[in-house]
Amino acid sequence: MNERLINAFAQIVGTENVRSSQAELLAYSYDATANFQAKPDLVISPNTTEEVAGIVKLCSKEQLPIVPRGSGTNLAAGTVPTSGGVVILFNRMNRIVELDMENLTITVQPGVITQDICSFVEQHGLFYPPDPSSMKISTIGGNVNENSGGLRGLKYGVTKDYVKALTAVLPNGELIKTGGKLAKDVAGYDLTALLVGSEGTLGIITEITLKLIPMPASKKTGIAYFNSLEDAAKTVSAIIANKIIPVTLEFMDKGTIGAVEDFMKIGLPRDAEAMLLFEQDGDEEMVIRDTKRMIEIAVDNGATSTALAASNEEADVLKTGRRVALSALSRKRPTTILEDATVPRSEIAKMVKEIQEIAVRHDVQICTFGHAGDGNLHPTCLTDVRDQEEMERVERALDEIFEAAIRLGGTITGEHGVGEMKAPYLEWKLGPSGIQLMRAIKESIDPQNIMNPGKIFAKSTKKRLVLQNA
Amino acid sequence: MNERLINAFAQIVGTENVRSSQAELLAYSYDATANFQAKPDLVISPNTTEEVAGIVKLCSKEQLPIVPRGSGTNLAAGTVPTSGGVVILFNRMNRIVELDMENLTITVQPGVITQDICSFVEQHGLFYPPDPSSMKISTIGGNVNENSGGLRGLKYGVTKDYVKALTAVLPNGELIKTGGKLAKDVAGYDLTALLVGSEGTLGIITEITLKLIPMPASKKTGIAYFNSLEDAAKTVSAIIANKIIPVTLEFMDKGTIGAVEDFMKIGLPRDAEAMLLFEQDGDEEMVIRDTKRMIEIAVDNGATSTALAASNEEADVLKTGRRVALSALSRKRPTTILEDATVPRSEIAKMVKEIQEIAVRHDVQICTFGHAGDGNLHPTCLTDVRDQEEMERVERALDEIFEAAIRLGGTITGEHGVGEMKAPYLEWKLGPSGIQLMRAIKESIDPQNIMNPGKIFAKSTKKRLVLQNA
Repeated sequence: MNERLINAFAQIVGTENVRSSQAELLAYSYDATANFQAKPDLVISPNTTEEVAGIVKLCSKEQLPIVPRGSGTNLAAGTVPTSGGVVILFNRMNRIVELDMENLTITVQPGVITQDICSFVEQHGLFYPPDPSSMKISTIGGNVNENSGGLRGLKYGVTKDYVKALTAVLPNGELIKTGGKLAKDVAGYDLTALLVGSEGTLGIITEITLKLIPMPASKKTGIAYFNSLEDAAKTVSAIIANKIIPVTLEFMDKGTIGAVEDFMKIGLPRDAEAMLLFEQDGDEEMVIRDTKRMIEIAVDNGATSTALAASNEEADVLKTGRRVALSALSRKRPTTILEDATVPRSEIAKMVKEIQEIAVRHDVQICTFGHAGDGNLHPTCLTDVRDQEEMERVERALDEIFEAAIRLGGTITGEHGVGEMKAPYLEWKLGPSGIQLMRAIKESIDPQNIMNPGKIFAKSTKKRLVLQNA
Repeated sequence: MNERLINAFAQIVGTENVRSSQAELLAYSYDATANFQAKPDLVISPNTTEEVAGIVKLCSKEQLPIVPRGSGTNLAAGTVPTSGGVVILFNRMNRIVELDMENLTITVQPGVITQDICSFVEQHGLFYPPDPSSMKISTIGGNVNENSGGLRGLKYGVTKDYVKALTAVLPNGELIKTGGKLAKDVAGYDLTALLVGSEGTLGIITEITLKLIPMPASKKTGIAYFNSLEDAAKTVSAIIANKIIPVTLEFMDKGTIGAVEDFMKIGLPRDAEAMLLFEQDGDEEMVIRDTKRMIEIAVDNGATSTALAASNEEADVLKTGRRVALSALSRKRPTTILEDATVPRSEIAKMVKEIQEIAVRHDVQICTFGHAGDGNLHPTCLTDVRDQEEMERVERALDEIFEAAIRLGGTITGEHGVGEMKAPYLEWKLGPSGIQLMRAIKESIDPQNIMNPGKIFAKSTKKRLVLQNA
């Protein structure tokens, strides 16, 4: 990028907030996605919405791509500067603007860490439920752009269910304010919902108002192991059929249980085919009743062992396995590809079975854990990107996993986003008319295609880009 | 409309499902909105999604406007065929397609009456919470197109929070299927959320999958009267500050209380400035505790009288006043204009006060009731459209009400939609860049502007169309 342009950006945000050294550009050339990398031309840290608008106007004039980036925990290459251009960081826009106790909302800048929001509101007896596994590192801006999910989705929904209002800079540099501190608002199209999960392709979100709810009075955790996937799946169905909606209902398969045990050595039953971890929150009587009932249901459906935590400390012990699942799996091989094919809750057993068969067929190692109550599975492929032959088998296996998810009424991504990595599969879910509709929306709002170009919409279809790049 | 075209439509749906007599066209020339009327050219009742696609293709070819219509209970002239064209009725597409007990979803055609869905799922211990006041007459297709709210919005949200998947015919006649029976799905833009509340301007919804939840075990109702609006508003704030989220928290002002008493003669306190009606549902212990606490909070904040229903029958008695509010008001004058300016919950007292002062200033009769917990107020103007001079004062008063709602951080419509009636005010809420963004989306999806033209987007701005037509 030439000096004239760098100086122009520096005039907007100050010289110290513009980075252009090769080392700095390299640091923002990747995110948490294996095997995707591209260097930006400039990295800029604005401090206000107005500075963001200034950057966007200049990028629009110069036709420069813009990639908004939180903490870069994206798992679908959504924050990789695929076409170069300007990375906008929100590390300086990290203020809690307002906690409104009367309307139960909190207004924040995009750079606030999600966990910090949860901790802050908890001091006031309030609760922000969405809890993506990355929440200790990831920013709320990233969560909103990706419509992040988490473990509490079954009972409490996902990020979009809590976003009440947004301030955003449109691709032409104009500001919009959507929504409000309102329980109800039907003034035209739901622009808030359109921006949430749009992966930075429609505008730059610069302020977010979130809905809060009262903190539940208590919570309780239980665990159950099963000798068959079907028994675990029957337990999930029976819990729902008993009209219990637990706050979390997590799943790990045999491979994941084994990896956790290898890592932690805490005495997990290696011969179990499946583990279910469940938590209920709310009023104490209800929590006790629901968790006891869930243990009974698990036993009735063939659980080989169960445990109900008597204290928060015991609950933490029960939750250890699920919490470390990804770390444990990541240690096995040089490359971890974490997917999130999602199916209707009723299809979980079928889906996990298919994943296991696909792994055997292509001789690749895939372990599955995830959010059973949501049908949101994380088949995790343990591999090595340096081995081209193995990666081709991985490619074919993941293709078949997505194909199976769609066939079972599911989707290619439950909570990670499409990004660059899953763009080639999007048409499988949406069909040509769905893709065409999304493209029409994108083109109408960002005719220059400067907002995070190369994301969501694939150049080609049905080819995994990771291999094209490999 | 010429015979050739009528025959072409008849070929798609059968002669008996095409209506073109003047009497029939007149019957579909208005909805529940006072003073808006325009005759369609044809009224068609398709039976399948494919027939809808056939109709839309033909309309696209002939550049004919299409107005989808449920039961015509719209209060913003959203289903008036403003530009003529074809009205599509869903009276034959009124089947419940599937109840899925494992995934807790119900799939329905758009013509099903909303109350029928609630009653049907209740037999299976399930609950569809959105409850617009029109639910005994209105169709689910209308509710989805308008993103209808209702009395239970505070705790359970509105229609959009329950729509999981849609089948829709796009303006070019192509089919799309959005979403799925999925708790989580981030595969591209949220087209489901874009279509919900789009008032028939982006496509024709032909199948809907709704999320259900377990039916709460019990519910309980209480009521409180106050000598000042501030005391009622303080009670609302204190309930929330006590971390209670009741299922309903309804409000009536003095004028509405008086109108109900005139109508029903059930002994309501005519001197009260405000009434709050509240209901909690859920586990019995929690319900008893919350409702008792709400009564205490009301008393602490100056309630002059309170009552807690001991049975469902007693609850029905307490709810009578709120239930008949609109009917009672409608009997007072020839024309009833029901608005739904909405503000943040914290601004309710200010807003009601402003409405009362505006009414006095313009010498018009406006009574207010609504959903206090949601800040969703229904200022109801009792007038006579035949009196041009009075209507001009009504016009100015409603202008000021919308201006006040926006100034207090609110919106021009909480649950009724924009339609034709509120289109001139939309820019007040969204600003020029918001309107421009919505127009860009509309034009990208419906470049011919055949989908319910004249709705949401006003020809002019800041002028109430009701007067232009009067």
